[in-house]
Amino acid sequence: MDAIKLVILGAAGRMGRALAKVVAETPGARVSAAVERAGSIALGTDCGELAGAGHFGVAITGDLDAALKDADGVLDFTAPASSVAVAAVAARLGLVHVVGTTGLGAADHAAIAAAAAGGARIVQSGNMSLGVNLLAVLVEQAAKALGPDAFDLEILEMHHRHKVDAPSGTALLLGEAAAAGRGIDLATQAVRVRDGHTGARPPGAIGFATLRGGSVVGDHTVVLAGEGERIELTHRADDRAIFARGAVRAALWARSQPPGLYSMRDVLGLAR
Amino acid sequence: MDAIKLVILGAAGRMGRALAKVVAETPGARVSAAVERAGSIALGTDCGELAGAGHFGVAITGDLDAALKDADGVLDFTAPASSVAVAAVAARLGLVHVVGTTGLGAADHAAIAAAAAGGARIVQSGNMSLGVNLLAVLVEQAAKALGPDAFDLEILEMHHRHKVDAPSGTALLLGEAAAAGRGIDLATQAVRVRDGHTGARPPGAIGFATLRGGSVVGDHTVVLAGEGERIELTHRADDRAIFARGAVRAALWARSQPPGLYSMRDVLGLAR
Amino acid sequence: MDAIKLVILGAAGRMGRALAKVVAETPGARVSAAVERAGSIALGTDCGELAGAGHFGVAITGDLDAALKDADGVLDFTAPASSVAVAAVAARLGLVHVVGTTGLGAADHAAIAAAAAGGARIVQSGNMSLGVNLLAVLVEQAAKALGPDAFDLEILEMHHRHKVDAPSGTALLLGEAAAAGRGIDLATQAVRVRDGHTGARPPGAIGFATLRGGSVVGDHTVVLAGEGERIELTHRADDRAIFARGAVRAALWARSQPPGLYSMRDVLGLAR
Amino acid sequence: MDAIKLVILGAAGRMGRALAKVVAETPGARVSAAVERAGSIALGTDCGELAGAGHFGVAITGDLDAALKDADGVLDFTAPASSVAVAAVAARLGLVHVVGTTGLGAADHAAIAAAAAGGARIVQSGNMSLGVNLLAVLVEQAAKALGPDAFDLEILEMHHRHKVDAPSGTALLLGEAAAAGRGIDLATQAVRVRDGHTGARPPGAIGFATLRGGSVVGDHTVVLAGEGERIELTHRADDRAIFARGAVRAALWARSQPPGLYSMRDVLGLAR
Repeated sequence: MDAIKLVILGAAGRMGRALAKVVAETPGARVSAAVERAGSIALGTDCGELAGAGHFGVAITGDLDAALKDADGVLDFTAPASSVAVAAVAARLGLVHVVGTTGLGAADHAAIAAAAAGGARIVQSGNMSLGVNLLAVLVEQAAKALGPDAFDLEILEMHHRHKVDAPSGTALLLGEAAAAGRGIDLATQAVRVRDGHTGARPPGAIGFATLRGGSVVGDHTVVLAGEGERIELTHRADDRAIFARGAVRAALWARSQPPGLYSMRDVLGLAR
Repeated sequence: MDAIKLVILGAAGRMGRALAKVVAETPGARVSAAVERAGSIALGTDCGELAGAGHFGVAITGDLDAALKDADGVLDFTAPASSVAVAAVAARLGLVHVVGTTGLGAADHAAIAAAAAGGARIVQSGNMSLGVNLLAVLVEQAAKALGPDAFDLEILEMHHRHKVDAPSGTALLLGEAAAAGRGIDLATQAVRVRDGHTGARPPGAIGFATLRGGSVVGDHTVVLAGEGERIELTHRADDRAIFARGAVRAALWARSQPPGLYSMRDVLGLAR
Repeated sequence: MDAIKLVILGAAGRMGRALAKVVAETPGARVSAAVERAGSIALGTDCGELAGAGHFGVAITGDLDAALKDADGVLDFTAPASSVAVAAVAARLGLVHVVGTTGLGAADHAAIAAAAAGGARIVQSGNMSLGVNLLAVLVEQAAKALGPDAFDLEILEMHHRHKVDAPSGTALLLGEAAAAGRGIDLATQAVRVRDGHTGARPPGAIGFATLRGGSVVGDHTVVLAGEGERIELTHRADDRAIFARGAVRAALWARSQPPGLYSMRDVLGLAR
Repeated sequence: MDAIKLVILGAAGRMGRALAKVVAETPGARVSAAVERAGSIALGTDCGELAGAGHFGVAITGDLDAALKDADGVLDFTAPASSVAVAAVAARLGLVHVVGTTGLGAADHAAIAAAAAGGARIVQSGNMSLGVNLLAVLVEQAAKALGPDAFDLEILEMHHRHKVDAPSGTALLLGEAAAAGRGIDLATQAVRVRDGHTGARPPGAIGFATLRGGSVVGDHTVVLAGEGERIELTHRADDRAIFARGAVRAALWARSQPPGLYSMRDVLGLAR
């Protein structure tokens, strides 16, 4: 098979540069275009050089449509509105669309599902790493085995100082896994804020807590706390290359799947 | 010197029972009275037996005034309104008053300071343990050495499911130590809630995060996160006897001090 | 059914006292005898009073045979030689024998298995808590999903200053779970000591590290460390009552099983 | 002042490449030569390109003497024998010699001290980061305040799978800080191995434990464990650039000092 031709969105950002590096290192994949928003000072720069990965001969462009026209897939860690718009184009062109964007709302998820139904091969996940997706499987089991009458479930995350939303997409992904294990609805059971007089912890709640600081790529811990004992299940990401590697692996996998909406658990073969 | 006669408030609660046990084990101290609120089912029960510490011959009473009349000091881990009221009595009678109550507001602190000026020997602290008070000293130094331009400071705490306020008094105590190290005002720099679109972390902020669950006595971590490195300073309390031991030590120490308001750092001799 | 009559071995030690307390709190169970070694200063003391659990009317004795004669089961957190000897008696009398003793060697395991084949109902485990046994299930799965070519597996434990062996029985139990997940033999792959010039880490090894100090009841962490990411699976025991509760639960369960050798996973119904 | 001319030893290794990158980013510093051992396949390659930092015009050489002849300083994270040999040359030429090599024995330290006495400006440290050196100051204080009768002191470290010695130089540095705080001799109090029947923890001991795996740059935790409470003081290095930045900072600082042997605490102005 020919090498898969991939478009990198947000090519001048941290994830964009990590993606460029990983695609260049992956046999069977190459960067066919790299996109930044109109007005970015990175427009015209070589995508590979910006990533410290050598000269690619791919100048960063602001023209998304032209970039997608000749591609097989698109790697997208941008913002919800942008990801929804790109999904529609991916549906029209039958592209692979890997969506690692965080902060998606219910309407965004619906629009992405519609694009998948309309012909796109979409892999969407709040976290593209092998470790986090395995952790989600373990959390689901632990939440089921250690029920809410005896064990309280809490989710803690820490990210770098530049992150603009909370809790992280990965924290919510782990919360969904926990809720699935307990057969409850995360939306009604989540406690996302504690300040002042909170009262005692509601039985069955799933609590979230957020730390921000430094250059932390992403740490997540799920705590199950009972009478006299605790289980803590932690993932630490030290290098955002792990997300880029997962995204490229997802693109290669999705290329040979029928159109539809997939998760990283599908890609990694981690059955629930 | 005669054994110090101590009154235990909230004698039927977790801390009250821990206090009873520790006073009984401490040479030079004894329980002269034990108080619970009117209507408590524990009224009339022997304080020592309730604590699993043997028979004391001290029935739990609802009559605070009678309890204090013949005492040298009072150990108080109750609620802000109650502690303020007791401080006024302590001033009138010249008692030692050890205040481990959390959730005190500015007005409560003012009332307690007034009682200390009026003749009480008050030791007030958000946390009575040796370890936490040492940690506060270390946090102050670290916050000073690793300034806000390079290191972001975050405070995490976890307590049992029954705790009704957040952040814990100890988390705030550590926040005050950090703020002192940086010469800033905690009230204006504290970030106590993160949910949804928060924007990037404000430089110089001190962030708080709260976990609740199980029977956790109290864990606190102060994180200083910079570019490529992190320091984490943690205290774990496994047994609330450590707070009871600190409170009794404070009462013994305060007995020979002039009236006034003291902290656990004064008691422990941990100069800043 | 009549209450199960249980004998507590090592009744004056920390675990013995925790067992006495838990048996007294458990409906359907009672302490029929309590044993200490000949010469112990606790001989003759009431087992319940020593445990802070009230008067049982059961004086601690040095006569093991008399203690076992009229019992249904025996709770045993002692030493390997003692547990092997008790297992033989349990086989002869058809008793339930719950063995929480750590530091068992291969010969000890063989002797215990022989006693189980000879008529005893033995539940043997390096750790009797619900949380640890669930953790072992999760470790086995993680070790399987994250193979030795990409993820290195390490096991860390911390216990109180009085513990006399290393690594803990629980650390070895977790090591066996990891080895089972990877289809390897723990004995040949374990690295139990690192000091001086060790050379690079052998691929596929399972490393152990030990901390000792304070009053720590027992913390265990299994780390799976890959390129750019880590998973940490932790159990923290804050109160040895969790082991006592598990042991009593095991005794109640084993009473209605045929003679044989069982694990806590059997008791808890945690299928691999 | 002219830019300081620095020689990088082990230029093809992980630390060597990190050093090259940081020197290139530091105003007032430049790479004047880059050295690898004879026979390395990296000989002749451009040092900057190998580091992903652009073309430096500095080919990696095997000729150490030629490299040092025209330099102001040398950055050395190699092996003990090599560092001792380089120190002698640095003494002869009056160079700045930054020694970040780990695994130095007593004889190595003596040889380095002799070179410093003979005219070299040597900064030697088991860890060049700001965070670790601050941590050492905090550890010394905590070890002093929480004495050995009540608090047991343990040191845990984790590094990547390629590390060949244990415990790490940084763990030993923290052990020395703890020993200084307690006024004891680390060599006689260190417990570096625990396996099998160890007996109870010796009072006053300083214990070490080692984990190895994945790509972990370097985590260190000092635990002070008492009755019912614990303090944990942790440093996490996520990026070895922090050591490179410290080494370059040390070189710039040492240039204007008289010949002698210095530590990173001297460079960073962290008085004990």
